[in-house]
Amino acid sequence: MDAKTGATNDRGLHVFRNPGSVAVVGASADPAKWGYWLARGALLGRPRRTVHLVARRGEEILGAPSSARLADLPQAPELVAFCVPAPDVRGVVEEALELGVRGLVGITAGVPDEPGLAARVRAAGARMIGPSSLGLFDAESSLQLAWGDFPPGELAVISQSGQIGSEIALLARRSGLGLSRFVSVGGQADVTAAELLTDLVDHTRTRAVALYLESFRDGRRVFAAVRALRAAGKHVVVLTAGGSEAGARAARSHTDALTSATELVDAACRAAGALRVSTPAALVDVVACLLAGGLPAGRRLGIVSDSGGQGAIAADCASRRDLTVPELSAPVSAAVGTGLPAAAATGNPVDLAGAGERDLSSYRTTVDALLRSGEVDGVLLTGYFGRYGLDSPALEEAECQVARELARAARENGRPLVVHTMGTESQAARALRAAGVAVFPTVEAAVDALAAAAALRARPGRPPVPAGSADITVAPGYWPARTLLTAAGVAFPPARQVGAPDDIRDAVARLRPPYVLKAGWLAHKTEAGGVRVGLRDGAQAHAAFSEMHGRLGDGTYVLEEQDTRTGAVEVIVGGRRDPYLGPMITVGAGGTEAELHRDVVTECAPVEIATARAMIAALRCAPLLTGWRGRAPADVEALAETVVAVSRLIARLGEDGAEIEINPVRVAADGALAVDALVLTSGSGAGAGTRNGRNEA
Amino acid sequence: MDAKTGATNDRGLHVFRNPGSVAVVGASADPAKWGYWLARGALLGRPRRTVHLVARRGEEILGAPSSARLADLPQAPELVAFCVPAPDVRGVVEEALELGVRGLVGITAGVPDEPGLAARVRAAGARMIGPSSLGLFDAESSLQLAWGDFPPGELAVISQSGQIGSEIALLARRSGLGLSRFVSVGGQADVTAAELLTDLVDHTRTRAVALYLESFRDGRRVFAAVRALRAAGKHVVVLTAGGSEAGARAARSHTDALTSATELVDAACRAAGALRVSTPAALVDVVACLLAGGLPAGRRLGIVSDSGGQGAIAADCASRRDLTVPELSAPVSAAVGTGLPAAAATGNPVDLAGAGERDLSSYRTTVDALLRSGEVDGVLLTGYFGRYGLDSPALEEAECQVARELARAARENGRPLVVHTMGTESQAARALRAAGVAVFPTVEAAVDALAAAAALRARPGRPPVPAGSADITVAPGYWPARTLLTAAGVAFPPARQVGAPDDIRDAVARLRPPYVLKAGWLAHKTEAGGVRVGLRDGAQAHAAFSEMHGRLGDGTYVLEEQDTRTGAVEVIVGGRRDPYLGPMITVGAGGTEAELHRDVVTECAPVEIATARAMIAALRCAPLLTGWRGRAPADVEALAETVVAVSRLIARLGEDGAEIEINPVRVAADGALAVDALVLTSGSGAGAGTRNGRNEA
Repeated sequence: MDAKTGATNDRGLHVFRNPGSVAVVGASADPAKWGYWLARGALLGRPRRTVHLVARRGEEILGAPSSARLADLPQAPELVAFCVPAPDVRGVVEEALELGVRGLVGITAGVPDEPGLAARVRAAGARMIGPSSLGLFDAESSLQLAWGDFPPGELAVISQSGQIGSEIALLARRSGLGLSRFVSVGGQADVTAAELLTDLVDHTRTRAVALYLESFRDGRRVFAAVRALRAAGKHVVVLTAGGSEAGARAARSHTDALTSATELVDAACRAAGALRVSTPAALVDVVACLLAGGLPAGRRLGIVSDSGGQGAIAADCASRRDLTVPELSAPVSAAVGTGLPAAAATGNPVDLAGAGERDLSSYRTTVDALLRSGEVDGVLLTGYFGRYGLDSPALEEAECQVARELARAARENGRPLVVHTMGTESQAARALRAAGVAVFPTVEAAVDALAAAAALRARPGRPPVPAGSADITVAPGYWPARTLLTAAGVAFPPARQVGAPDDIRDAVARLRPPYVLKAGWLAHKTEAGGVRVGLRDGAQAHAAFSEMHGRLGDGTYVLEEQDTRTGAVEVIVGGRRDPYLGPMITVGAGGTEAELHRDVVTECAPVEIATARAMIAALRCAPLLTGWRGRAPADVEALAETVVAVSRLIARLGEDGAEIEINPVRVAADGALAVDALVLTSGSGAGAGTRNGRNEA
Repeated sequence: MDAKTGATNDRGLHVFRNPGSVAVVGASADPAKWGYWLARGALLGRPRRTVHLVARRGEEILGAPSSARLADLPQAPELVAFCVPAPDVRGVVEEALELGVRGLVGITAGVPDEPGLAARVRAAGARMIGPSSLGLFDAESSLQLAWGDFPPGELAVISQSGQIGSEIALLARRSGLGLSRFVSVGGQADVTAAELLTDLVDHTRTRAVALYLESFRDGRRVFAAVRALRAAGKHVVVLTAGGSEAGARAARSHTDALTSATELVDAACRAAGALRVSTPAALVDVVACLLAGGLPAGRRLGIVSDSGGQGAIAADCASRRDLTVPELSAPVSAAVGTGLPAAAATGNPVDLAGAGERDLSSYRTTVDALLRSGEVDGVLLTGYFGRYGLDSPALEEAECQVARELARAARENGRPLVVHTMGTESQAARALRAAGVAVFPTVEAAVDALAAAAALRARPGRPPVPAGSADITVAPGYWPARTLLTAAGVAFPPARQVGAPDDIRDAVARLRPPYVLKAGWLAHKTEAGGVRVGLRDGAQAHAAFSEMHGRLGDGTYVLEEQDTRTGAVEVIVGGRRDPYLGPMITVGAGGTEAELHRDVVTECAPVEIATARAMIAALRCAPLLTGWRGRAPADVEALAETVVAVSRLIARLGEDGAEIEINPVRVAADGALAVDALVLTSGSGAGAGTRNGRNEA
């Protein structure tokens, strides 16, 4: 079996989960050196496995003996972690392979010819993480081959950048989260992120996975693994960089990796059921929310505070994140307000108006009433709760009790509760976390995390994308594009190919005026004078053909009925096959100001009709389609069917880099008509990149 | 002098800054009670002033004696802080006034008839903060009449909500910032936020002011005070709530205050040179940045990290906040890269590629080279720096030394340096803060704070708005609106009033076809069939008039030349006079999709031509005006002049609620023409709100 197909969960990776024995090469007694921390971490696993240390001078390290060379060890270790000068790496690896070592973890930067080294390792039947890794941790097996301390927990971190992996781990610890696994994958010369993700599918302790990647070159395998993780009930949150021009510059210069456009990564995440975030802190916050309260079923938020101002600021934050803060019905408002003073606001946000301070249990009754109301999908408690015990130690015990009751209310109602508190370091905050409630030091962090979790619920993941069949090639020009798209189910106005005046006569007899005449084979028809619109009858069509033919010569002309429907909305529908992330389908606002508004939605292709409808509804210009200013509603269903058709076609086109563009699709009350189109495949005519022309009819 | 005009800096407020003597009424020996903390805080000021405690049972409190009644005190205090049951407040206040007390601070919720109580206090020549305040702190005079600890510093907090004031104070302390002053103003029954702001103008210790307000009812005085603070060199950051529909609901239910629309508050902030933020944490972060490094001169950011991934993520954050991360010139890139390994990226973001770890001083040389390059306006150092000493205590001293050198480099180059560090709690982080560098625990907090500071630099504040003169009233209808606007300098197409067929004949002789005929007096001309466009000659004009007159009867018809310029861009220009924040001018994208795009910019009126140009340039649709897709550039200067003219006119209209709307202004290469307009004043015809009609010519 190919070591990289991802078909099983092992492929020699077991040695990185629970090796029977480990050796650290480059161990050191100097706490300022990596070799010290590697040794220290490895020795923590001693109750479970033999740990050998290899140090040049064979000195005692942390009370353990060391050998000067791997070959001097009494037995060959299963796994070798090394942290040695770059020029020594090749020798260490060769020595290890000779001894029959099954796994290597390299924590050395600047090793020459990483691919060659990796090939050598694989050829010997072994596997290697790094050599530019920052290490490895596994809570299940007490395996720690990395700097720092790793409180055990439920979050696995797989990171292409060691530093960002460390930052995620640090922030997780600050938020009270522990790690189940940590792997810094480095340049992925041998073991890849995709393999390590797959390896987590049956990693019992792991309930959420944080993935940092700069390159999605291996995107298909990565997202196949994400799908498998989702199917196993584990959350996946993806962090990537390079969304900005400067960010992309940095990513390239860092690992010479191609940074995929963020929109495509977003589409791939949605299709696989993962969530993309933009910073390590955002990642840790949403993970805290996911691990604590699970996913909200919708975007309706209830807000409780003992301060009207804090409730209002929370509501503003929610609104910026597209969460709604619905006004409560009269019965629910009455239930929420039971026992509260007259000055309390019980509409949502709920303001206890001092009742919280007078009686801590009013927090519980209010939050509980909201959670069980059915009128919100989650509750945010914001402000002072969690700080009473810090300011008045006499209140600490009562506050912790309420904290536990709040957590139980959330659990019993099956709806998430998140807490922003002015006292994150308090016993009550600890009690909340221990009982499964996410606690945040700022209101925006709480709201952002809940909104991200809600977005994840809204995108449950779709079935994997089938591989394209490479047997479709398309001749250049408008007519072949039209023909292919028509067969795929896209509607065009009636048209005929015309090459001579006689053809015009036949075409006019069959088509309804006005007509458009197009020099269909031209890449840039309009600029070349290859489009004439508004031809009102046969005579005008003849005259136009004669004039155009005189200028442009023989070619595949097309005479087409002009779409003259008033009030039609112009939309762009496009497909492309990304070399790393596969087929994508895009729908967007069309017309001459399309570039200005950049109003597009992209998903992995193919899409079903429901997804196509959702894509259209997510456009900012969607109101134009549904009866704008008294216009008749456009036939959105016909547009959705066009999106589905193009998405299926691009998924069938087998070549990376293939493109389809229909610009515009004109959508009116009585249907959607494509009035220009191009299809690009490498077989499209003379050279790749020959564009099949378009007009602006 | 009126106690509320804001003309001087005192008006009886001195007693709240440094009273000679203080009494706490409702003092308590129970640490769970407010009365304990009030007494404790007051006693801290004892070296500077006499402190009396009044407690019902006259017991000893915190080692100090107490009296049972104010009248029992050996001398009358200047300032009385009280925390007593609401029904007792009136009695305490009367007793205090009788004794000649000059100031009262009330920390009691639910006091009946606050306005009556306030009037009584003022009538006695005294002043009162509260009675629903959460207290008062002044670092200059060691005056503390509030719960909690207040490390002294340079930030003054004035808050309508005591809880949000406390949250700001807490977050400031977490960020290493101290307070110069803290006043929870409550419902502002007597002393207002505007007065307290004015009182800070000569408060030496205060270098930055945090203002939380829910109501801008007193907006003109508030922003006059903000201007005075800015003129005194103090930064002002404004937090408000109610930007969302639910947020506004909460704010209303909290204080029954009218929440002004956030855009208007933003405009008022820009005009006064203040910055608006959305959360307490965002407020504290930008204050930390302002107090530390001052203001960046522009939006160009240099980024330094020892991790390419962290640099790329920072660049993405910067891009989301409209900061640019410019690629460095070859000489600067060479200077930045001096001494760095070959793997380093020196373009921007700068990636030290491990050099930071090997030699901490490479952080200093790189940051210094960037700061002095002239190619960036500020530098962000992101990632591991600030954590070396935590992980390797041997490095702590060297790291602190580099921290101090970094701070000096920023100071000497006069450009801000902000630091995101994975080790906010380290000695190096403390050294950075102590030396005047803002330090943040997440990269987004650092970038957001710097971007906000840059926005503040971009808006230095404009001269105050003159009061309107109330003597302009406008008759209803299009013709009077046109006449007023024409006189103000707005260009319309030539037109004539017409009432009879003879008028049409005269008009046609003087106007160029095609014509538009408008039933100018109608509020909704188009809907009523009161607009006819495209009248190609006199005959068509006569026929249209005859038909329309037959239907609509006598009235002020207008025959106008139709603006037929192709490629004209439709823009809306509007003015309104907000009752609380004064005259405002808005420019926005016009056309039938205007509501969809909500592409508008609002500023306080009047504006000068430079501001008008900047407003237009800030529109998302601005590219349409500057030569979109090969079109001739539109006459943006003529549009800017129209904006200036409307802004001056609305500033002259004296009535709150007055409105001007020109929709659309058609802007083409050869000028800007208003083709419909309305002006609303309370004198506009039969009733307020009569709209002077419009067409869609």
